[in-house]
Amino acid sequence: MQRLCVRFLCGFRVRHFCSQPGLSWPNIELRGKVDKFGGVTVRLEPSHNLGEAVFETWLHESVKQWRAAGRIAVWLHIPIMQSRLISIAASEGFTFHHAERNESTLTLWLKDGPSKLPGYATHQVGVAGAVLDEDNGKVLVVQDRNKTVNAWKFPGGLSDQGEDIGATAVREVLEETGIHSEFKSLLSIRQQHNHPGAFGKSDLYIICRLKPLSYTINFCHQECLKCEWMDLQELAYCSNTTIITSRVAKLLLYGYNEGFHLVDLTMRTFPAVYSGLFYSLYHKELPETYEGSATLL
Amino acid sequence: MQRLCVRFLCGFRVRHFCSQPGLSWPNIELRGKVDKFGGVTVRLEPSHNLGEAVFETWLHESVKQWRAAGRIAVWLHIPIMQSRLISIAASEGFTFHHAERNESTLTLWLKDGPSKLPGYATHQVGVAGAVLDEDNGKVLVVQDRNKTVNAWKFPGGLSDQGEDIGATAVREVLEETGIHSEFKSLLSIRQQHNHPGAFGKSDLYIICRLKPLSYTINFCHQECLKCEWMDLQELAYCSNTTIITSRVAKLLLYGYNEGFHLVDLTMRTFPAVYSGLFYSLYHKELPETYEGSATLL
Repeated sequence: MQRLCVRFLCGFRVRHFCSQPGLSWPNIELRGKVDKFGGVTVRLEPSHNLGEAVFETWLHESVKQWRAAGRIAVWLHIPIMQSRLISIAASEGFTFHHAERNESTLTLWLKDGPSKLPGYATHQVGVAGAVLDEDNGKVLVVQDRNKTVNAWKFPGGLSDQGEDIGATAVREVLEETGIHSEFKSLLSIRQQHNHPGAFGKSDLYIICRLKPLSYTINFCHQECLKCEWMDLQELAYCSNTTIITSRVAKLLLYGYNEGFHLVDLTMRTFPAVYSGLFYSLYHKELPETYEGSATLL
Repeated sequence: MQRLCVRFLCGFRVRHFCSQPGLSWPNIELRGKVDKFGGVTVRLEPSHNLGEAVFETWLHESVKQWRAAGRIAVWLHIPIMQSRLISIAASEGFTFHHAERNESTLTLWLKDGPSKLPGYATHQVGVAGAVLDEDNGKVLVVQDRNKTVNAWKFPGGLSDQGEDIGATAVREVLEETGIHSEFKSLLSIRQQHNHPGAFGKSDLYIICRLKPLSYTINFCHQECLKCEWMDLQELAYCSNTTIITSRVAKLLLYGYNEGFHLVDLTMRTFPAVYSGLFYSLYHKELPETYEGSATLL
């Protein structure tokens, strides 16, 4: 499905819509901007001091005008201290698109059929680190505190916003176990919908292979009941662990015995096409004979 | 970092907190529930008809009581039609945790230091399908409409909430090109932060290997400028494509020439430990000699 982008806004005055005979308007400083898809964005500022009646009439008339002008949707950004205006927008048909910290964003689809506006983030990302000491074949495992079943697992936790997958693994391993490590590769990905604790959203749980940079365990007793270096073979075939930990332990054992190139997704960083930002790309290592030198977009 | 879970609520009456000398309370039906971490959850119902002054005094007094009782945080769920109460909560220090459709959720951290409450979803997930016809080595590619640069890429788009990675790939390929296909494997993952169009969130872009079930192209002219079956070798080394498409084309060529087991992350479905739900796990295929039969948690 084609979802609509909200970038590349070009501005004009919403007030323009409201200068109609029979309606007298206060000096509303609201600005509406039309994006290249024909959506209108209105951003209320904390400095705006709109009466509810004025906003209600203005919004009602503006929506009529936007429909008449063939606009496809409205994006309405409301500072938290002006949230009394939200229920007025809701009466006009707006619903929450998302909200964070001190602002909420509401949308109204103006065309027939279901909204084609892009949704908000759908996944939280959790990352665990399988720290393997290649000198002795031992891997770092923990047992969570406050669990009904004590299962061995790899230390890990949720990514912070903007944090790279490998950085989360290294940080969580250090916080939980006191072990310093470095990212080597990505081993597995689990997708779980309606994940408990994800507020109705989905969860991606990624397990990375890490190399230890220190060896003395100093684990977080708030989080962990136990923490130890366990023989990889033992973890791969013991019963008091989770399916994922067991499968990844077997995968790690396979790589340890026969070469990590068989199980690793390695990471490379590249510049993004338009934004000037960088991204990380993970896949099986590509043999040099397949590497090309064409200048790409 | 240990983030706090919001499951396993045990209920008691918030009103209990408010029965103090010197304060007369209307019959507030608000219920507060304490979770196992010591957080309090208050859920306003659309049926509640609270005056703003009553809510303000009640919330202020309740927060004092919760602090005194050693509670760590408050979760406040507010129906959209009662959003006039949000700015009152904001004056008490609450901020938005998230909002969707007809409800917003605000939180207040009651302890010292930064909040340890779990965040909301941080990633959108986009999926593309590399549909390879193994009989002739041709792969299905498109050029997006409305782009400043016309680059060949694999058809794809954003996952809907609750949609499996493979299902998104198959759906998007069908919607954009008219080609029916089936999921074979996961080939690569890209992580991009501050992704344009992701509302400040991050983007995971996953490319899957698909097998065609039909061959006659009937592409969506709204979304695509061009769509064709292109020789995989040509795509892997042509210049008018993106870095990711080129690298995945080379990876696909490597698999096509020397065996897809070298590049595929295969998918298996397993039951979740506690929730009774199922999840999908992706990693390199594990040789049978490494498979074990222990009964796991």
